[in-house]
Amino acid sequence: MDGSRGRRLLAEGLGTALLLATVVGSGIMGETLASGNLAIALLGNTIATGAILVVLILIFGPVSGAHFNPAVTLIFLIRRELRLPDAALYLLVQVAGGVIGVLVAHGMFDVALTSEFTRPRTGPAQWFSEGVATFGLLLTILGCVKHRIEAVPYAVGLYITAGYWFTASTSFANPAVTVARSFTGTFAGINPWDAPGFIAAQFIGAVLAWLVARFLFPAERSAV
Amino acid sequence: MDGSRGRRLLAEGLGTALLLATVVGSGIMGETLASGNLAIALLGNTIATGAILVVLILIFGPVSGAHFNPAVTLIFLIRRELRLPDAALYLLVQVAGGVIGVLVAHGMFDVALTSEFTRPRTGPAQWFSEGVATFGLLLTILGCVKHRIEAVPYAVGLYITAGYWFTASTSFANPAVTVARSFTGTFAGINPWDAPGFIAAQFIGAVLAWLVARFLFPAERSAV
Amino acid sequence: MDGSRGRRLLAEGLGTALLLATVVGSGIMGETLASGNLAIALLGNTIATGAILVVLILIFGPVSGAHFNPAVTLIFLIRRELRLPDAALYLLVQVAGGVIGVLVAHGMFDVALTSEFTRPRTGPAQWFSEGVATFGLLLTILGCVKHRIEAVPYAVGLYITAGYWFTASTSFANPAVTVARSFTGTFAGINPWDAPGFIAAQFIGAVLAWLVARFLFPAERSAV
Amino acid sequence: MDGSRGRRLLAEGLGTALLLATVVGSGIMGETLASGNLAIALLGNTIATGAILVVLILIFGPVSGAHFNPAVTLIFLIRRELRLPDAALYLLVQVAGGVIGVLVAHGMFDVALTSEFTRPRTGPAQWFSEGVATFGLLLTILGCVKHRIEAVPYAVGLYITAGYWFTASTSFANPAVTVARSFTGTFAGINPWDAPGFIAAQFIGAVLAWLVARFLFPAERSAV
Repeated sequence: MDGSRGRRLLAEGLGTALLLATVVGSGIMGETLASGNLAIALLGNTIATGAILVVLILIFGPVSGAHFNPAVTLIFLIRRELRLPDAALYLLVQVAGGVIGVLVAHGMFDVALTSEFTRPRTGPAQWFSEGVATFGLLLTILGCVKHRIEAVPYAVGLYITAGYWFTASTSFANPAVTVARSFTGTFAGINPWDAPGFIAAQFIGAVLAWLVARFLFPAERSAV
Repeated sequence: MDGSRGRRLLAEGLGTALLLATVVGSGIMGETLASGNLAIALLGNTIATGAILVVLILIFGPVSGAHFNPAVTLIFLIRRELRLPDAALYLLVQVAGGVIGVLVAHGMFDVALTSEFTRPRTGPAQWFSEGVATFGLLLTILGCVKHRIEAVPYAVGLYITAGYWFTASTSFANPAVTVARSFTGTFAGINPWDAPGFIAAQFIGAVLAWLVARFLFPAERSAV
Repeated sequence: MDGSRGRRLLAEGLGTALLLATVVGSGIMGETLASGNLAIALLGNTIATGAILVVLILIFGPVSGAHFNPAVTLIFLIRRELRLPDAALYLLVQVAGGVIGVLVAHGMFDVALTSEFTRPRTGPAQWFSEGVATFGLLLTILGCVKHRIEAVPYAVGLYITAGYWFTASTSFANPAVTVARSFTGTFAGINPWDAPGFIAAQFIGAVLAWLVARFLFPAERSAV
Repeated sequence: MDGSRGRRLLAEGLGTALLLATVVGSGIMGETLASGNLAIALLGNTIATGAILVVLILIFGPVSGAHFNPAVTLIFLIRRELRLPDAALYLLVQVAGGVIGVLVAHGMFDVALTSEFTRPRTGPAQWFSEGVATFGLLLTILGCVKHRIEAVPYAVGLYITAGYWFTASTSFANPAVTVARSFTGTFAGINPWDAPGFIAAQFIGAVLAWLVARFLFPAERSAV
């Protein structure tokens, strides 16, 4: 592994870790302080997640592309902007980084590293939500890559800000995030046995977005 | 219909669908979680709507202009930046896309596709609110088009963020959105028989903004 | 009055009217919905005001400078970037526009045009707050004018967003806004007899900021 | 001390003062209004702090670098972008400015200048939180300095917005802020005897970030 690839993998892993530390940590903070009003807990969770996404994509984007998300990595593999060995390594460090991020959040909030699973998230409405959420996320990324590349960090942060509220599943929209969040029973958690349904829906949504984007944002000629 | 026009219509329709999915979905999420505190529900509704508007205008603006709004389409028709057949097709896909977006939101939150109508929004104060809301929206768009075209996505997202709070009607400001929201009885809904009053006020506000903008932001010479 | 001056005055008057409609309207909306939790009411008030300021300065800045504020106009008069007759007319339309904006908000929310005065805002801590608030506002404007002129709309919107929370008076920071808000007894109101103390503190804060800015942001050589 | 250095020190001191006035003032406002719901208090505190950071870095960044933070100053000293005497003076005015800012907040809210200490913040989880918070802050700064220097104000404001929620300590992430906040017993306070643990963790986090950034964002060749 040459220095350049090591740098990219560290960026993907560290970025995903910081993303998960934020998602899970701000969920714990919100639920702890909100006196049972879950809308306020979700507001804090939303603002923190949207904000950190902008930051992480700003600083890691120029290093690794700042995917932090196997669904994104898959689409860039399909678009031949990433080679298969790199995509496999990206997947690996995204999942590992995500799990480490959850442990960091547990450490900061003094939560037992392994907690009970109390967050069922399953059923057709939840899966449909994840499909829509990931479809929209990939459309956001592919549209900005075509038209306003410098706006990607802001667009993704804002998209997830909206996604936390407009989907019934709060838009995980990310298989690595889903796996990592199955390691916690706190506000942002998901029961491990509910993760596969989410992940399948996410990949389906991503591929559908890629198909639509091929028509809407064709590479061969710019609409700008 | 050539490929280019198809792409524009898909952008208008898909964009309006995602807008409505967000408006209605985040309304349901807010009302469900907020334990009866409607200000918190409106906060979540506001943040999601403002954020998704920025994203949708960023990615679809270069394709179709990202109107998502017959009042906007009308003004660009009057300004001769859009031809009548295109304007008519825009109107069609905006309304169709909006209704589909409402159904998507209902699907994600497992709400019956047709729900009871429980959201009266009528009377002079509501109509005045919609007139002011649409006047301000068009002024925002026409001012940015003149002076800072690249800021349109952010300006529109921020304008609607403010509009949800400063008007008594929460700023529908969009006839297609009004029609679509008449298909839901959830937080963001409007009773169908109240829609015409909103739509009339919106078109009046839009035309007034166009008249003011002709004086404030004349096309013939730039004030920048 | 030539066309160009008329355009500038309309921009100042209309901008101040929309600003006040937002400040007062979102205050009414917040207090109505927040079930007595004034922090949530202030959150809605804050987000709406900060957002509309960005929009109004984006669209009216290139026309009139987007002062909307006699304290800002005074400093640009002192800096000789505005002549006295223009400054006087700015002041006039700012106050008139502000009052009209309050009436528009009352109309949208069906509040009696004249309401009882129930918002005492007085005493040294409140005056000190207004002095600090206006000092910071002018420093923000003068610093951005020197270093990052294109960021003025965002910086002012963000400054007032912070100001609503970090000063005990919620940062009126604007004599025209203060006069206009003395016309309402709603959430954003101020009793008329408390307005002079606010206005005096605001002008003092503005002049102090000008003095500090002369040292920190000297015109003769750029630090960028 | 020549004029240029005086200007830089005034920028650091005044900026840190305004930062602390905001952190402490908005904490008091939030706690006062939030009827015991601390999540809402923290939301107001977060929004105000994030917003003012963007503003202060926009206007003071071109003058002094807008550190407002001895941990940041230390890293720029290590990177040899600041000389030792300047770093020492920066530290001095940051701490002095921070304390003055706390007193200003107390004055605006009519709080006794010295208040009881009622905010214990100690233990391994809190220290780990501060280490992570400062690590992320420095990584944000160093990444943006390498790749998108003009985004620093927005990135730092957004990072702290997230940090208030994702760390158990609400991300002081700044030794001068920690010292200054030990002068207040209000919402944003910290008991003086708990400050050293925070400060040690902050410097450790900063140095670790510098080490990681040397690998991720090497100065010798750009990854953009």
